[in-house]
Amino acid sequence: MGYFSELRRDLVSDDWVVIATGRAKRPHDFLSEEKIRFQQPRKSCPFEGEHPFVIARFAVPGKIESDWWVEVVPNKYPAFGKGEVSFAHRTGPYQWVEGVGSHEVVISRDHTRALADMTDEEARVVVRAYYDRFQKLSRERYVLYVSIFHNHGRLAGASISHPHSQIIAIPVVPPDIARSLEGSEKYFRNHKTCVHCAMVRYEMEARERIVYENENFVVFAPFASRSAFELRIFPKRHHAHFLETSEEELGFFANALRIALAKLSRGLHNPDYNFFIHTAPNENSRQYHHYHWHLEIIPKTGIWAGFEIGTGIEIATIAPETAAVFLRDIVV
Amino acid sequence: MGYFSELRRDLVSDDWVVIATGRAKRPHDFLSEEKIRFQQPRKSCPFEGEHPFVIARFAVPGKIESDWWVEVVPNKYPAFGKGEVSFAHRTGPYQWVEGVGSHEVVISRDHTRALADMTDEEARVVVRAYYDRFQKLSRERYVLYVSIFHNHGRLAGASISHPHSQIIAIPVVPPDIARSLEGSEKYFRNHKTCVHCAMVRYEMEARERIVYENENFVVFAPFASRSAFELRIFPKRHHAHFLETSEEELGFFANALRIALAKLSRGLHNPDYNFFIHTAPNENSRQYHHYHWHLEIIPKTGIWAGFEIGTGIEIATIAPETAAVFLRDIVV
Repeated sequence: MGYFSELRRDLVSDDWVVIATGRAKRPHDFLSEEKIRFQQPRKSCPFEGEHPFVIARFAVPGKIESDWWVEVVPNKYPAFGKGEVSFAHRTGPYQWVEGVGSHEVVISRDHTRALADMTDEEARVVVRAYYDRFQKLSRERYVLYVSIFHNHGRLAGASISHPHSQIIAIPVVPPDIARSLEGSEKYFRNHKTCVHCAMVRYEMEARERIVYENENFVVFAPFASRSAFELRIFPKRHHAHFLETSEEELGFFANALRIALAKLSRGLHNPDYNFFIHTAPNENSRQYHHYHWHLEIIPKTGIWAGFEIGTGIEIATIAPETAAVFLRDIVV
Repeated sequence: MGYFSELRRDLVSDDWVVIATGRAKRPHDFLSEEKIRFQQPRKSCPFEGEHPFVIARFAVPGKIESDWWVEVVPNKYPAFGKGEVSFAHRTGPYQWVEGVGSHEVVISRDHTRALADMTDEEARVVVRAYYDRFQKLSRERYVLYVSIFHNHGRLAGASISHPHSQIIAIPVVPPDIARSLEGSEKYFRNHKTCVHCAMVRYEMEARERIVYENENFVVFAPFASRSAFELRIFPKRHHAHFLETSEEELGFFANALRIALAKLSRGLHNPDYNFFIHTAPNENSRQYHHYHWHLEIIPKTGIWAGFEIGTGIEIATIAPETAAVFLRDIVV
């Protein structure tokens, strides 16, 4: 078929899911593979040593490329396959598109140091890699959305312990982003202001949930926290799209991200967590002026069970106000 | 404060989350408790023996109450607290309501036999307990939605291995349900038919994804499968609300549920899974005539990581067509 996967649309909710048809796994392969993944952590790190194909390398300023700090490589088991463009199809009442996209891995050099343990300068190289790859991928014709995310720890879905982030570029706007865009558009219509700016302004006045801030970024525990110790990092200036961030702001972003993760790591004894960037989509970015890019950190402090999966309501067992006081006082 | 939790609304997405403010856990308590939960499975079962407070008991027809098969008790750590009604509040730009509701546990008697291992007669007692409690809880003034769900196995969030389901009654319509209602309403407007009926009809013609059916219920792997081996169980007759199910249909429902779980259990070597009922809300159930209640079974075959949490797009590593062929052939 030439592609790895299909993006299929749920007939009722309109949500997209990915069906990995192309890898053509059979149920028995599936079973044994899962077993390996959950029960036998690998001893040797697949991210150490030379990679057969390197997409890009990034070094701390002043160092040469062979002294790289961050390396970007293709994901060995991509969820999306290469292609020029993806076409819409119909099967009975259902819609689907080909899973055209890319799936890259951003590996930092030191096996033992996660972002929380890096210097500001090193963290900035990671963020620089995010930015550069985002920019390059955005030029591909098929790309409607670029998702940058990071899984830390096995409970957070990291099958390899070596610190790494992932970048997935896809030909649809993800459901969660579509909903947030709808929400921010509605708020803008009613209040003539960006909903995220309003939230940041309120939080910076109330100060109840602020964990850290620097010149350009603010870190707070959100009022409607999805999990205990959830944190969000917002640029103080209104930027709908991640790529609108200036060179100088990227430095402050790296600092805010590093401090937030270091506080979680020290305060909660290296918890597992996911973080990801939410940004306006790539198409017609003008029309999304009401959006405001940001980063969300979700510590894995529980398991999504039947209630959460069945209702979409998450339960945070610590109030964000309590989490913020606790994390604010952690010295890093 | 008198209540256990707050339902807080996300300012951008309008999603509800639960913040357990009332339990007033401190971060240090939180840490040690999580550690216990993840690292030390209890040896002795807290669901065996006498419960201090029993809400209801259900026996196999013909047996006396002391020979009960299913017992319903209050959850020892409820996510929602008792109350008459919940009030809407505002804090700055944010909205929240008091976490008024109830949280019950449906325990079957045999520690070693999950629903997959029961007889049809025993499974029917479980389903009867669901129905009766749903009916009673629906009469409470505050209840807008009743969520019935089941966690099987530690990876699916079951902290206690003794087979049990949970019933949570809440004063809001959950975000996932709200979206499905919107979707089914839109489909009804455009096609003058229930979207779920259309789907069931198509699946029963195509037969590609059918796993099992009996007189009144059909089990299939959904086209837009959220996970490998996801199954959905639909009543063939159009019923918007779970409580519209007839006595006779309940028996066929129990049979379909038992067979579906037994096929998963045998085929995939007792995987962890969640299942839950999706139904129209309790308020003005007439207005939701376009909806169609059903049950979804989601095996825990992977971990929701940064991509899934950050985009809302789930990845199924087995096509539903492949899963259906495999499960159809499993003899139970």
